[in-house]
Amino acid sequence: MKYYLGVDLGGTNIVAGLVDGDANILARDSVRTNIPRRAEDICGDIAALCARIMQSTGLSMGDVEWIGIGSPGIILDGVVRYANNLQFCEEPLAAMVERMTGKTTLLQNDGNAAAYGELLVGAGRGHRSLIAITLGTGVGGGIVIDNRIHSGFNGAAGEIGHTVIHYGGRLCTCGKAGCIEAYCSATAIRKITAEAMERHPESRMWQHIGQNGRISAKTPFAAAREGDSAAKKVVDEFLLHLSIAVSNAINLLQPEVVCIGGGVSREGDYIIEPVRELVAKQTYLPKEEHRTRIVASQLGDDAGLIGAA
Amino acid sequence: MKYYLGVDLGGTNIVAGLVDGDANILARDSVRTNIPRRAEDICGDIAALCARIMQSTGLSMGDVEWIGIGSPGIILDGVVRYANNLQFCEEPLAAMVERMTGKTTLLQNDGNAAAYGELLVGAGRGHRSLIAITLGTGVGGGIVIDNRIHSGFNGAAGEIGHTVIHYGGRLCTCGKAGCIEAYCSATAIRKITAEAMERHPESRMWQHIGQNGRISAKTPFAAAREGDSAAKKVVDEFLLHLSIAVSNAINLLQPEVVCIGGGVSREGDYIIEPVRELVAKQTYLPKEEHRTRIVASQLGDDAGLIGAA
Repeated sequence: MKYYLGVDLGGTNIVAGLVDGDANILARDSVRTNIPRRAEDICGDIAALCARIMQSTGLSMGDVEWIGIGSPGIILDGVVRYANNLQFCEEPLAAMVERMTGKTTLLQNDGNAAAYGELLVGAGRGHRSLIAITLGTGVGGGIVIDNRIHSGFNGAAGEIGHTVIHYGGRLCTCGKAGCIEAYCSATAIRKITAEAMERHPESRMWQHIGQNGRISAKTPFAAAREGDSAAKKVVDEFLLHLSIAVSNAINLLQPEVVCIGGGVSREGDYIIEPVRELVAKQTYLPKEEHRTRIVASQLGDDAGLIGAA
Repeated sequence: MKYYLGVDLGGTNIVAGLVDGDANILARDSVRTNIPRRAEDICGDIAALCARIMQSTGLSMGDVEWIGIGSPGIILDGVVRYANNLQFCEEPLAAMVERMTGKTTLLQNDGNAAAYGELLVGAGRGHRSLIAITLGTGVGGGIVIDNRIHSGFNGAAGEIGHTVIHYGGRLCTCGKAGCIEAYCSATAIRKITAEAMERHPESRMWQHIGQNGRISAKTPFAAAREGDSAAKKVVDEFLLHLSIAVSNAINLLQPEVVCIGGGVSREGDYIIEPVRELVAKQTYLPKEEHRTRIVASQLGDDAGLIGAA
């Protein structure tokens, strides 16, 4: 059996795992990312994390084929060219970890790694092309075409969250107006929910906030399930925007599978089924077998780790 | 020298040409498409057109390597699965023409053929990835990735004109609201111009209509060049929408080149330069060499014919 180390370098945690050739995670461990930090220090933690995992399994680094890292940002030739949240610019992460571990190290964008993981052993298994949309703090994306990650000539492709679907719409953190992220991220849902709650003091959404008074992205979904009309409106707007994001991706690229993941996607068929129906009205393929399948992520938070490995 | 026959099957005309290995068009001819007609009859005309061209050049079909056809619609495995304007459904065009001519015949979507032509010998020469946006009666698209046409698993990819950028916006011919085509096609520009002229009887746009009183897509550009403010507003809105279309394509796919063609693109640097500036604000690559080049089509109406060949 061959073994691979996968690393999911996130803004909050660095998660690493030992993955076998069947994509089972045999062991995992994590440390805090603690940004901002120097890339050398973060790579030191990655190397230490990998060593700790190998120790816990009784295997040695000699049993590992390679280390694969999924990182936010624009990645090209093993270098993080630019990553806003890590505050990295031109950091040769792959070479650093390779020097520290003595292992061949591959570096890929985290959204692309997640898409690749889903294609290999998750929601896209058996297919050759997939677009992953990850609804988390932001909206991430990853594209696989003909079994290969498509990261563009400059390593920056897949930014589906920052494609504009609503001209003149809500301001996005990136500075543009009307990005998908400004409507479909957990952050955006919380903000839109808070606005709706202010307008509707009678809404049942007020019963679905945390004990600390915190609105979550689950708040409108929970209240909508109970028939609350203001919550339904928030959910419907979210679904409409998400369906446009998915339809645009399909009309442009026609992948076999669009895979929706991230925390928000845990609402499951409360999201997937309505989005399927809305997308069917916005795409043009008369025959069922020619239509892109829209599915929920199967690997969840492990997609990035497995894909990286 | 090797020779190839390229056919651009349009809604109005069928244009065919003999193309050499350096992508020079040595001879060309055309007939009216006269839709709606049976696919067999149209293929008969294509075969006759090819024969006529060969006769005019003194070469024989034996000198031709293959026939390549660019057709509107969803194309898969040599079959037009569905083409709205030709009223074709499941027509095996490649096999029909192959039977009539005895030559290997390849079939591709016309937008993809044009993109491939521009990549090979036009505005994208020397590059490996290109997105072509054609601003004509509608807004067409074509995608080439790693020197290969990307038509999706079902042959329907590249419909950039029917991606939505303006949620709740203008109604498109496809039935959706806010498609790029509803803002950036010649048809849309004429409509938006007519509305602006109604609101502004003082506008210089009234001086730039044809003798028949016909508004053209050139009307607002001509008046804007003379400083007319209502015309400038029409042009600015067009440029903003086009820049979003281009930015979305870049943020998603990061091709080396975005090539803008079609009749409207003949406004040249009056379009390309402002779109470049607008797109620079909507994309995220700090380094110049990592940025997608935005260029005007070089092959113009010949892109489809050359790409098909």
